[in-house]
Parts: sequence; C-alpha cells; structure tokens
Amino acid sequence: MSYFLGIDGGGTGCRAAIADAQGRIVGRGMAGPANISVETQEACANILAAARAALAEAGQGRLDQMTAVLGLAGANVTAAARALQAMLPFRRARIVTDAVTAALGALGQDDGIVAAMGTGSVFAVQTGGRLRQYGGRGFVLGDEGSGAVLGRTLLAEALRAEDGFAPMTPLLRAVLKELGGAEGAISFGFRARPADFAAFAPRLLAPGDAAAERILAAALVQVQAMIEVLQAGRGLPVVFLGGLGPHYAARLQGHWPIRPPKGSGLDGALHLARQQA
Amino acid sequence: MSYFLGIDGGGTGCRAAIADAQGRIVGRGMAGPANISVETQEACANILAAARAALAEAGQGRLDQMTAVLGLAGANVTAAARALQAMLPFRRARIVTDAVTAALGALGQDDGIVAAMGTGSVFAVQTGGRLRQYGGRGFVLGDEGSGAVLGRTLLAEALRAEDGFAPMTPLLRAVLKELGGAEGAISFGFRARPADFAAFAPRLLAPGDAAAERILAAALVQVQAMIEVLQAGRGLPVVFLGGLGPHYAARLQGHWPIRPPKGSGLDGALHLARQQA
Repeated sequence: MSYFLGIDGGGTGCRAAIADAQGRIVGRGMAGPANISVETQEACANILAAARAALAEAGQGRLDQMTAVLGLAGANVTAAARALQAMLPFRRARIVTDAVTAALGALGQDDGIVAAMGTGSVFAVQTGGRLRQYGGRGFVLGDEGSGAVLGRTLLAEALRAEDGFAPMTPLLRAVLKELGGAEGAISFGFRARPADFAAFAPRLLAPGDAAAERILAAALVQVQAMIEVLQAGRGLPVVFLGGLGPHYAARLQGHWPIRPPKGSGLDGALHLARQQA
Repeated sequence: MSYFLGIDGGGTGCRAAIADAQGRIVGRGMAGPANISVETQEACANILAAARAALAEAGQGRLDQMTAVLGLAGANVTAAARALQAMLPFRRARIVTDAVTAALGALGQDDGIVAAMGTGSVFAVQTGGRLRQYGGRGFVLGDEGSGAVLGRTLLAEALRAEDGFAPMTPLLRAVLKELGGAEGAISFGFRARPADFAAFAPRLLAPGDAAAERILAAALVQVQAMIEVLQAGRGLPVVFLGGLGPHYAARLQGHWPIRPPKGSGLDGALHLARQQA
C-alpha cells in the first residue's frame, strides 16, 4: 500500500496530510513555522513534526517510504531548498513554493488564474496542466497590491499629507497619531516587517476616507492590469486567495469569471505528490 | 576675540570650520562619518576630531569657549540628538539636520526653495529668514525622486518586465543579468542599503532606453509637483543640491528661476553659529 505526504508550510505554521493511493486523507498534523529561507533547520524540524503527527493519526505507513511534496514559503531561494532537500527522510521529496501548491489546490485540474493577495502577493496561471508563477518578488521590489505594500503606501501618504504634499484625511491623521506623529511613523517604517505594515491594510477597506479610496483604487487598477496581462484575452476564471482575496474579488467582479478556490494548498501538495508517483 | 565652529556631518564624513567674528574662516578640519542616528559615539568622536583639526589650523581659540552649530545626518532622531548634546564640550552647541545647514548654505539670506536630491531627498523653504524642512522621510516611506528610490524603481521594473508585466528593454535586461537574474535581483533587494540602490540611478540618465525614460519622467513629474506645492504660486528661486541635483535642474528648467547654491552646508552651519551669538 503506498501513501503520499503533502506539506503546506509558511511563516506562521506548517500543516501535513497523508493520503492513500485513492487520494483519501488518512492523517493530518500541524507544527510551527516553515519559511525555509528564514530558518531552514527550524523549518525542517517543524515539517518533520507535522509529518510525524499525521503519521500517528494515520496509524500506518513509514516516512522513508513516502512520496512527499512540500509547498513552502521561501522555496524560491534555491540554496535554502537545496539545503532542506538534503535533510529530508522521505523516499522521494519535491520542494515547490507555497504559491504553487496554493494555486494547484485552488484550481485543481482546471485552467485558470490564481491571485494570492495576503501579506505578500503572487500570481499563477494554469493552462493545459502547466502552472507558471508570476510576481511574488517580495515586499521591497514587488508584491503589488499586497497587504504589506498597501499598509506602507498608507503610511507614506500620511507623511506626505503631514507635509502638505497630499490632502490630510481623518484616516491619515489617525494613523499618524497612533504612531506618535511623523517621527514615530518614520522610525516604525524603518523597523517594520511586512506583516507590521500589512496590519494597516484593513484600515483602507472601510468606506468613506478619500485617501483610503484613492490608495485602494490605485491598487485595484494595478492588480486588474496584471491579471489582464496574464489573461492575454483568454477570459480564464480567476481565483482570489489570501486575507485580501475576498475584497479584490468583490471589487473586480465583471471583468472575468471569478471562482472560489476548489481546495487548499495542502490539497495542492497531495495532488502533486500523487502525480509524482 | 570670539570664534564660531561649524560642523557638517553625514554618512561618509564630517567637516569642521572655525570662523572669527567677521565670518572669516581661520581653520578647517575633516574626519570620518557623523550620522548620529547610526552610531552616536563614533559620530561624536569624528566631530571632535574634525573640530580639533580646525583648531590646530586656526592656532587660536578654545573649543569650550566656542559657539558651535552642527548640521548632522540623523539629527531628526530626537533621542540621538539629545545623547550627542550631552557629550559635546562646546560653550554652546546647537544640533540641526544637515538638510538645514545645506539649505542655509545654498540660499544664504535669500528667500528660496532647496531640493537636495542625493541618495535620499529632502526639501526646504526659506522665506523672511524662516527655514522649514519638508520630505526627507527616508527610503522606506519617502525620499521621492532620490537616487535610492530611482534605483529601487529600476530594479522593480526589471522584475516586472521579466514577468511580462512591463516591456523589456536593453537596460532592464542588462540590470537583471548583472544581478544574476530575477532571483539574484530579489536577494540583492532584500539586503541592499539605500546607497546600493542609488548606485543604479545614474543608469537612468543615459538617453535612449524606454524604461529609463519612463521612470525618470515619472520622478520629474513627482518632484515638480512637490516643488509647486512648496512654491504656492510664489515663483521662489529653486536651488538643486546633491548628486542628482544638476540633472533635475537641467530637466526642470523654465518652471521657476533655478539658481546655483551660494555656499556649502559648512557655510550654512557657520552662518547659523554667528546668528546664535
């Protein structure tokens, strides 16, 4: 009897599932963070902890006999992926980015476009069983429309308004006050990680503030234009994922068919694992 | 006989000058970096080394009898300025940002606008002897039109072009190749300091590349709009400083009177020191 292991690991946690040859899930497990570009050793320990928990629930199978697919944050850093590969005890293991497994889970076998709009952003297109990733270049040079970029844009706009370069609004004033004025906002900006900026993004979603509406409208234009490039006129269905996904989906309705995700990133990893065998 | 000390300190070095009551410079000195928000103790040591060198050249006066004005990078970080203040041996010392002394040096007593376009960017307006600083919010949340922001924009555009979201050009292709492709550019972006990004800005100034021209045109529009806000219709003369200053001056001719700087940041510090007395 052969079993398949799927892993879905990101910056906040790691999930594992074991499926049998028919695709039925027989065990699940969870553990701590698994962003392999941040801390490869710790990520490996958490991946194995989640896998062993799934194995215990399944009550059958052995890790060194399993075909595993791991969808992991940071797997686009080749050196980290190579280092992790050497540590894994599975019979076969394939490491891909969590964006790939999320997209496969969301689309299943269907052609379509996935726009994952969370703290970061990343896009994928699947046609004829081939999946290709776009964007996901990170907070400094990319991640267009992501929570981190939206939050950073909000803070920058507040500082511009404080100088008279943009109109001051109630939201901008409130944000400046919370951060201790312009000096506080600047020092927050220098030490903030992407998730710290992203914590401000939900503030843009409440209606009625002119600055919030302008920032959100610009992000919608940018994300729509990126999806149009990926569509290349094909009218593929689009699945929005991530914390901001439903908000983009609601505001970009009517341009293309918008679909809910078929499954999770863990489903995508298991699907790929069964394909490997 | 009373003497005045001016200090102009930034991330790469620190200059000192001593002037007599008539404003004649009687001694000059130089030393290492003096960005006080980065390393306050080291900055203080370099400031004192430069001051002692100026004193040696002057052959007269005593530091503990001098009125000093220090124009220093990082002086907008209040805690750093306060810590430095407690370490200084001068009779009186006033600490301001290097942007303030640069603007005072550039304008002298005249009304006008200063746009300092270097690795970062900062603006100042002087009217009726009052100087106010604008912008200079740093690389993450501001520094519009600066070398660091232009360089970062170039790299981000190269990554977008690599994904098909923007047209690929010879410059974008060359930049990606130098950085080892998209993955190399992304990891460069995560570890690069502002000066590392700014090193790419001169590439935008060579004519003929469509992406470079688009990025530069957008920066010109943004900087022009900021100066229009500061002008508030007054038609004040504008002085451009910094490595990119001459390039902005050449490309924004005709909107307002553009003037060369009257003097340096050290002149501005000495001017302020004599005003203090």
